[in-house]
Parts: sequence; structure tokens; C-alpha cells
Amino acid sequence: MYVRTTVDPPYLRLLQLLRDEGPISRAELADRLELTRPRLLAEVERLVAAEYVAEAGMAASRGGRRSTLVELHPRLHFAAVDLGASSIDVEVTNGRLETVAAYTEAADIRSGPKAILHRVNELLAKARVDGVYDRLDAIGVGVPGPVSFRDGVPVSPPIMPGWDRFPVRELMTREHGCPTVVDNDVNIMAIGERHGGVAHSVDDFLFIKIGTGIGCGIHLNGEVYRGTDGCAGDIGHIQVDPQGPMCSCGNIGCLEALFSGVGLARDALAAARSGASPSLAERLTAGAPLTARDVADGAAEGDVTCIQLIREGGSRIGSVLAALVSFANPSMIVIGGGLAQLGHILLAEIRSAVYRRSLPLATGNLPVVLSELGPRAGVTGAAVLASHVAFEQAS
Amino acid sequence: MYVRTTVDPPYLRLLQLLRDEGPISRAELADRLELTRPRLLAEVERLVAAEYVAEAGMAASRGGRRSTLVELHPRLHFAAVDLGASSIDVEVTNGRLETVAAYTEAADIRSGPKAILHRVNELLAKARVDGVYDRLDAIGVGVPGPVSFRDGVPVSPPIMPGWDRFPVRELMTREHGCPTVVDNDVNIMAIGERHGGVAHSVDDFLFIKIGTGIGCGIHLNGEVYRGTDGCAGDIGHIQVDPQGPMCSCGNIGCLEALFSGVGLARDALAAARSGASPSLAERLTAGAPLTARDVADGAAEGDVTCIQLIREGGSRIGSVLAALVSFANPSMIVIGGGLAQLGHILLAEIRSAVYRRSLPLATGNLPVVLSELGPRAGVTGAAVLASHVAFEQAS
Repeated sequence: MYVRTTVDPPYLRLLQLLRDEGPISRAELADRLELTRPRLLAEVERLVAAEYVAEAGMAASRGGRRSTLVELHPRLHFAAVDLGASSIDVEVTNGRLETVAAYTEAADIRSGPKAILHRVNELLAKARVDGVYDRLDAIGVGVPGPVSFRDGVPVSPPIMPGWDRFPVRELMTREHGCPTVVDNDVNIMAIGERHGGVAHSVDDFLFIKIGTGIGCGIHLNGEVYRGTDGCAGDIGHIQVDPQGPMCSCGNIGCLEALFSGVGLARDALAAARSGASPSLAERLTAGAPLTARDVADGAAEGDVTCIQLIREGGSRIGSVLAALVSFANPSMIVIGGGLAQLGHILLAEIRSAVYRRSLPLATGNLPVVLSELGPRAGVTGAAVLASHVAFEQAS
Repeated sequence: MYVRTTVDPPYLRLLQLLRDEGPISRAELADRLELTRPRLLAEVERLVAAEYVAEAGMAASRGGRRSTLVELHPRLHFAAVDLGASSIDVEVTNGRLETVAAYTEAADIRSGPKAILHRVNELLAKARVDGVYDRLDAIGVGVPGPVSFRDGVPVSPPIMPGWDRFPVRELMTREHGCPTVVDNDVNIMAIGERHGGVAHSVDDFLFIKIGTGIGCGIHLNGEVYRGTDGCAGDIGHIQVDPQGPMCSCGNIGCLEALFSGVGLARDALAAARSGASPSLAERLTAGAPLTARDVADGAAEGDVTCIQLIREGGSRIGSVLAALVSFANPSMIVIGGGLAQLGHILLAEIRSAVYRRSLPLATGNLPVVLSELGPRAGVTGAAVLASHVAFEQAS
């Protein structure tokens, strides 16, 4: 309890190094992993035989005999699936997590698990027929709701009728003959942002997704923190105004009832109809339903009501984050999800509330920043999760 | 990241087993620690030579040759120091954390580090002169404010003038020639409660201290979570009412400005003076300043205003805890500190708010309970911390 160090076994660290850095010589691998030369050679030989690793030519000389480069086996492929409330994102990557095929399409998660996963499998089958891969080594799936990570099933997901306890992992594993890992969409976005985004190598951070709903991915000590029942980070239903509107969850004044994609569309419509916002009124007349994009555009044009809507929302989220900063003392906060497109007006309000309201000690070095990966955070994280589960099979 | 297991080295687990369970035979130790017999014997021999472990007679036969019992060396002694806003608690324990000397006295933390630590050292010197111990193996110190755990110093502690960055660890280490560990009072109370109280062996829980101020000790995955700057759990300054009273921290409407020892005394005085509470008015006339104890007594006698004060406070704390439950999804909440004496009226309000406001998935199996160790939680945790740092020296 007092001081502990956790170290992954050598084969895992070896595979992760090759994934993140590409071909590396045996000599350098032995140095980096602090393994004796014979131990490293035995490990590599075993991974070559299991087709996780392959020879990749000779390294430049380091003075003595030239060392052979090794790399992840070219046959390795992962599938990354990011299911949103209204979209499907599927990517196939090679071992280095480089995208070799990508599909994005609109889909209503409420169509249910059979229809949605059928479509995912059609897209993956298409990639195989097109020669993108022979077989998959692992699949990572993100869904927009609470997940039992251990069981690989959604648990009482509010916006996913028909998905409760549906065996997502089992179905995908059976269909593709490879391990599958299922996680909450916010957790995979946080994993993605830590792997290849603004939180690169940051051990303790919060990823706040502001989209249709609001959620939080928590990384502590370099790992996803999921909580006792796997629902840690469900901050969208924290009450921020006891006199606020009713939320879809049945409670009053939840954060996401006041500010989220749904809440903002509702407030934008009211502002358009009342005439408070000429910019929104004009867009409403143009036809399509108002969305966060319209509010962002209105604000960019200087529409005062649009700016006000964004600032009020930022202030709401900021006050909740201030409380979470006092509680968790993270070293970074990343803002992502569709409403991150509201950009710097939103960010400025959030920052202002966090810096004003949290303990000074906790905010002295606390960056509050926008996601770098944007809409690709989810698939990136799903691919990272898939690589973990695949590499662990190499034990 | 995906799945990791952390295991302490064998010597640590061995010493912890002997600390928590007393004498154990070599045969049983080998089984429990999953070590080969020769490996275990070598480990024990080393610890006997270093005077961490001693022989303790023969174990009952398990069929074959009788195995020798080993136990923690009788010379092992730890000091546990719990400094409160207005009290000093010092205990000396043996290796098994059994108290062999205990001192409690009133002291004002604002007297400054030199005066307070001088008095602690006088008490420890007295114990040595009385023959309680020869020398200390480690000291655990809890202080009522934020601590840099790494540096062993308080950091900007609001109610501890003169203590900012005072080298508490260094001073104690020099004085007693043994390692010292310094932590926040709430963290040590949480550690104590997990070692010997209601949170025994619970891996993910929050310990809420409601006393002069309000703080939270966080255990995640079986370990204290301290956050990036060591100030995680500082929930007393979360804003709960933007129209509330000013807090000592300079902000408006902080949780502890609305409900804590200080806040409750203020509200009790107002209720006594206005005549709203006959019970408190009578106690005020009797002389001594009103405290939480008076409110608890008034409530026990059925004074409506006293009951109301406790219920309002419980509701405030409950609404903050509901947010933290949604965020952290712990498996238990323990309520401790001086105001836990307000008992079941307080607990009922807190429970009601948490169960009503948090995600159902997170509260399905969430006990919200009172501390079992009460005022001894702090010293118990300080002794546990001391034993950890002492045992690590045995490497």
C-alpha cells in the first residue's frame, strides 16, 4: 500500500514498444527492456514462432556485429468499433495501430444490438473481401452507455433500448474467432487521447465528453478507473440545479439536462422562436433542426444569445469540474465530444469556473484543454484496447 | 493497462501476515505466500538476522515434523501521532500494532510546529523512560491539512499557521533515528478504518471526515489515492450554495462553511439567541460555548430546531456525496470525524440524498455507514503507515 511499482511482463512491454515505435533492433530491445541478451533472444524467438513478431532486415551498425531489426508481424490486424448514439465508426488497423480501412456511417443505436452489430460485421466482412486483412487478432468495441467491462455487456444503458446485458463480446468473439473487449465510449476516447492525443503519457487525467449526453473517462495511475460496478465517470446526472428541467433519467436539474447536445438544441429552438437570437431564427427558417453547430456558427458571427448559451453551459460544466478537481486532483482535463466544437468560448468559461472554484494547490499546474483527436478519439482507443487483449494472448 | 496484477514482494507480505495474524508456522507461511520451502526458510533466516522476525516455539503438528512458529520481533515498536486542530494523540505500538502506551491531550495546532512536535517528542521520551520501548522502528504522523506525501511536509494548510513546508518528516527522523511518514489526517483515518474498522479489506471506498472542517480519504484498488499534488479528497471547499456564507478559504458557499463543526456552532448560537431552539437557549445560558455535542443532545431530547439543523447538514453533505458516487462509483462510504456523533439522524439524511440522487447502478450495493473506530481511526492508520515504512526497510 505504501509504495508499489507495477511492471508488465517483458513480452507485453516488447510488443507495446514495437507497436508504438516500429522496427527496433534486438540489441536495443535488450537494453530498453533491461533483459539479458539470451533472455531477449528466447523471448523474440517465441514471439516469431507465434507470428506476433517478424524479422525486418538489419539495423545500422552500433560498432560491433549488426543486429537484426524486429517488428510486429504484418499479419496482425485489429478492429476498432465506436458506436455512437447516431453513428457507427469501424476501423481496421495493422499491429502498429495504423488505419488500413475505415468506415463511418449514420445509424440509430436504438435499432438494437442485432441490427447494429450485423452492420458492423458487414463492414468488417467487406474489408476482408477487399483483401485488407486475413483474420482479426482482436476487436475493441465502444458503446454509448454503461458497460460491465468484466462481462463484456452493456448494463441498463439509458439511450440504448434492447442492449441491456446483450452479449456483445460473446457475439463478436464467435463471429470473428478472436478476443473482443467492450467498453464505454468515454473510456475508449480517454484511452485514445492518452495513446495518441493531448494526454499522451499523462497518468492522471479526466476526459470530459460533451455530446448527446455528458460523461467522464477517468485515468488514475496510468490506468482506466472504472469503479466498483464499472460506472465510474457518470457525471451527466449530477444535479446542478434543483429548480432545473427534468432529465431523461427522471431526476431534476441534471448537468446533461441543462447542457448537452439535447439541451442545447432545446435552448436554441426556444431562442429562435422567441426572437432572442436573430441568427438562430434565420437558421430555423432555413429548415433543418437546430443543433450545436448552429449555435457555434451563430456565436462565431457574434450573436449575443448564442454566445450566452455557450457561456452558461460552460459555467455549469465548469462548476461540476471544479468539484471533481477538488476531489480527484488530476493533472489534466481534456474536453472532447461533439460539443467541443463550441471551441474557445466554451473552454474559457470552463477554465474560469475551474480555476476560480477549485483548491489553488490543485489548479496550480492544471491544463484544461480541448481533445486533439476529436471524432477519432473513440476508434483510436478501441484499437488500443484491442491491441492489449491481443498482446496478452501472447503470454 | 488492460489487466494488471500488483503483488508486494514476499518479505513484505510475510511481515504483514505476522502483523495482522500473529505467530504462524514456517510450513503455513510457505503455503500462504506460495514460496518453496527453501526460499521461505532463507527469507525467514534473513529477517531473523535483521531482527524483524523471531522464533516463537513449536506449532501443533500437521502430521509430519512439527514446524517452528515465527512472529514479529518483540523489539519492534512504532509511534503513531494524530495531530488535530485542538488535540494531540500519540500511541506507541508493538509490531502487531497493539497499543503499549497512549497519550491524549488538548493542544492548539496554531501553536506552531516547533511547540507541537516538541510536546510529541516529550511524550515519546516519557514512554521510553518508562521502559515501553528501546527504540522506534518508524513513526506515522497525521496532520489536519494538505501534505506533500513525497516530501513529508504540510503544504499551505489553512488552519495550521507556521506549518507550511515545515520539515516534519526530517525533524522526527533526526530526533528518533527512524523513518517517518507524514500524511493528511483524513487519509490516515481511512487507512485505520480499512485496517481495523468497518472498511476492513474494502478496496474502493470513501472516508468522509466531518469535524472542524470536512475532508475525504480515498481508497482505490486497495490503496490511498492522493492525486497529482497530494490534495485529492479536499471536498470541504466544493461550492454547494452560490448564495451561501463566506468560507474561511475566501470563496462563497463552500460545503464546510455550511456544515461542519464551525458552521454548526455558528448556527446553534443563532438558534439559541433567536429563541428558535429552547434546548440550545438553555444550554447557552448554562455558560460554555455551544458545540455539535449540544445540538446532538438537543436532537436526542426532541428539539425540532436541533433535528432540523442536523437534517439540513446531512442533506448538504449527501448532495455532494451523490455527485462523488456518480463520479467514483465506490463500494462503501464511511462517515467519521467529530460530527459523526450526530448519529443516525445525520446518517439517514446523507443516505437519503445519496440513494435518491446517484445512478441506481452505483448505489445498488453501496453501504453508507458510520466509522467503527471513531476517534481512534487516526492513530490506528498512522501506526499502519509506520509499519509499512518500517517493513520496507527490511528489503
